[in-house]
Amino acid sequence: MAAEHDLHAFEQRIGHRFRNRKLLIRALTHRSFAAEHNERLEFVGDSILNYAVAKMLFEQFPKLPEGRLSPLRAALVRESRLAETARDLNMGALLHLGAGELKSGGRERPSILADALEAVFAAVSLDADFAAAEAVVRRLFADKVRQAEHLGWDKDPKTALQEILQGQKRPLPVYRIEQQTGAGNDARFDVACDLGALGKVFRARASSRRAAEQECAKQALAWLAGQGLS
Amino acid sequence: MAAEHDLHAFEQRIGHRFRNRKLLIRALTHRSFAAEHNERLEFVGDSILNYAVAKMLFEQFPKLPEGRLSPLRAALVRESRLAETARDLNMGALLHLGAGELKSGGRERPSILADALEAVFAAVSLDADFAAAEAVVRRLFADKVRQAEHLGWDKDPKTALQEILQGQKRPLPVYRIEQQTGAGNDARFDVACDLGALGKVFRARASSRRAAEQECAKQALAWLAGQGLS
Repeated sequence: MAAEHDLHAFEQRIGHRFRNRKLLIRALTHRSFAAEHNERLEFVGDSILNYAVAKMLFEQFPKLPEGRLSPLRAALVRESRLAETARDLNMGALLHLGAGELKSGGRERPSILADALEAVFAAVSLDADFAAAEAVVRRLFADKVRQAEHLGWDKDPKTALQEILQGQKRPLPVYRIEQQTGAGNDARFDVACDLGALGKVFRARASSRRAAEQECAKQALAWLAGQGLS
Repeated sequence: MAAEHDLHAFEQRIGHRFRNRKLLIRALTHRSFAAEHNERLEFVGDSILNYAVAKMLFEQFPKLPEGRLSPLRAALVRESRLAETARDLNMGALLHLGAGELKSGGRERPSILADALEAVFAAVSLDADFAAAEAVVRRLFADKVRQAEHLGWDKDPKTALQEILQGQKRPLPVYRIEQQTGAGNDARFDVACDLGALGKVFRARASSRRAAEQECAKQALAWLAGQGLS
């Protein structure tokens, strides 16, 4: 059982003091521990997180089309990023896990940490209201969203990719046409984007060189985000 | 352009009167019509819808595990159901579409209708607040959620499937073991669930006959939901 002062410290970090502590406990309870576990809360919390981050991105990037907002949100709320946030909040120590999960390192398992964090958002909404839960998400994600802007996510994919790699002092991506057929409306460009030392090459086909390059860059950005490299 | 009285009628149907009509117009504007289109609103509105329906299901089905809530929500918010709701609201006539989309039947296209409806939820939230948007979703989805309960979605999959088919005066599903191997922990049951006149057979494998039957029934429910048959 988590000590009272640990729970209190957690509440301070997320910026919400529970009136009904049972809701917080439930959010921290994995299905391996008790029948009263956090899965239903996680179902609701996931949608609170998705809305709150969508709204932040909508506000922060007023020019970004939907096709760029969706992958950006996916990168921000993916399991490994949530688990990282949960670790920053020291949630592992607060979790209620069954004996098997405890032994096999459940306190560090990304899926368990991410689910518990989402469940906490729902617990806050039930303890107070939706706005309180949204405020907790905003508090935890404000820096990450600002960082996304800093990393150039709001630029076109080629520019964003270039700025991210430059920022990490990595070599710039090399684009090359691997095949070109047809002309006019029938033109097809097969383009590769080579990230060099990162050991990855992304390929795309489009009816213009520029469109194919942007598409490759988009794939590269998604990959970088997935690797935690952006 | 939609006539003023059509817009007013729409506002009455969704139960929200816009202070800033431009937000509503934007939600009704497809990308084929103008640069100021509804895609960014749809990005936000989709997450409002997902939260609001998740919350309704959470409240309405207090015993249903997350593994049943998720497919139930998916069935309620899938494109064809949203398009149906948009048609009930007579949204097709209100849409701003480019000439090409108009000619090719864009006012009836499910994806365009569904996206516009989601965009309306975001427009309401920006015009007033999140709670106003949630209230609109609740108004539009209350009957559908109640119906889900009536249809037995809150039961185990086999029972739910049976009750749905009975309610439609269709023959009951027939379960049969197609193969059985091993014993104890190594037991494997290959089970089929035959919907007879509906022309579909679903198959699953599990370590018990009951588990395999439930899994088949789950697939059948998902298929029925996808066909608009539940």
